[in-house]
Amino acid sequence: MNRLIRNLCKLPGIGEKTAERLATYMLHASDVEVSALAKSIGELKKQVNICATCFALSDTRQCRICRDPGRDAGMICVVESPADMAAIERSGAFTGVYHLLQGLLSPMDGIGPADIRIAELVARVSAGNVREVVIATSTNIEGEATATYIRSQLKSFPVKTTRIASGVPMGGELKYVDQVTLKKALEARHDL
Amino acid sequence: MNRLIRNLCKLPGIGEKTAERLATYMLHASDVEVSALAKSIGELKKQVNICATCFALSDTRQCRICRDPGRDAGMICVVESPADMAAIERSGAFTGVYHLLQGLLSPMDGIGPADIRIAELVARVSAGNVREVVIATSTNIEGEATATYIRSQLKSFPVKTTRIASGVPMGGELKYVDQVTLKKALEARHDL
Repeated sequence: MNRLIRNLCKLPGIGEKTAERLATYMLHASDVEVSALAKSIGELKKQVNICATCFALSDTRQCRICRDPGRDAGMICVVESPADMAAIERSGAFTGVYHLLQGLLSPMDGIGPADIRIAELVARVSAGNVREVVIATSTNIEGEATATYIRSQLKSFPVKTTRIASGVPMGGELKYVDQVTLKKALEARHDL
Repeated sequence: MNRLIRNLCKLPGIGEKTAERLATYMLHASDVEVSALAKSIGELKKQVNICATCFALSDTRQCRICRDPGRDAGMICVVESPADMAAIERSGAFTGVYHLLQGLLSPMDGIGPADIRIAELVARVSAGNVREVVIATSTNIEGEATATYIRSQLKSFPVKTTRIASGVPMGGELKYVDQVTLKKALEARHDL
């Protein structure tokens, strides 16, 4: 019991009290439930792989999206994390495939192009059949720098490079929007 | 003292305790400070007018921006409140003039076009010399509906009608952005 509590404590956001409560719950839960939990934790590292094409999390060699013939393989959306990919999938607005970077360029932290799978993206584009690369990295400094770097690396290929729009979020009231975003929103205004 | 506390209590966000604290402060503050406060409150309703051109708050017949020859009178930014106008001014990205609506269209609350100074906007445009109307209402349902209505009213005039961009706010991480905004950001992606 104490060993379990100590191990649970190592998880993020779980303190001693929560760990105790979880351990007590497991003590009283059915054998089936507890062994299923233990098994799924044990299998996690063994079965979760990374897609050979797009580097998304997957339990097969190629992920569900890369294997899907209904997805447009000519359109690659570049994201920095599986969570961002999940957010875009939830929006339902993208029908192409993905390329997962391993984070963003950050010279201050010693993270250069070689660390975040940009060469792999260039290789996918140079293999042909890609019409458009949509760069959907975050709109912070690292995200913008990474987008600019990717653009420079793809310049010599016959591929369209686009960036997601920045502006006022939907449902937003202007008075609560920061100045840089307002500036971008005014600059990128479009015909109505 | 009690009468002051009762009157302060009527202000939004000020309860009995805060009112008491404010009243006590005034009791001990210098005569000059207290009478300056009393005077400025007394003059508020007398001196704050509304600009005859754009309906912004102003202490003269025409507001500071409408009078400024350095501002581009051929470009009108339509906002729904003085707070939104202040936000856009802070961004420094707009050098034209404004038109302040008195809120947004909201049929459910009985607010129609006649209530929010849209006719006055059409009159300004029909007087000529306006090249572009930038509609900077909020990106919620009422804001979008108001933008569409204004567009329909201006269709017959030789004026460009634009809408501020919606998308991912600057500095934002994609995974925290709502689905509708992500969808808009992907649809409105631009060449890099």
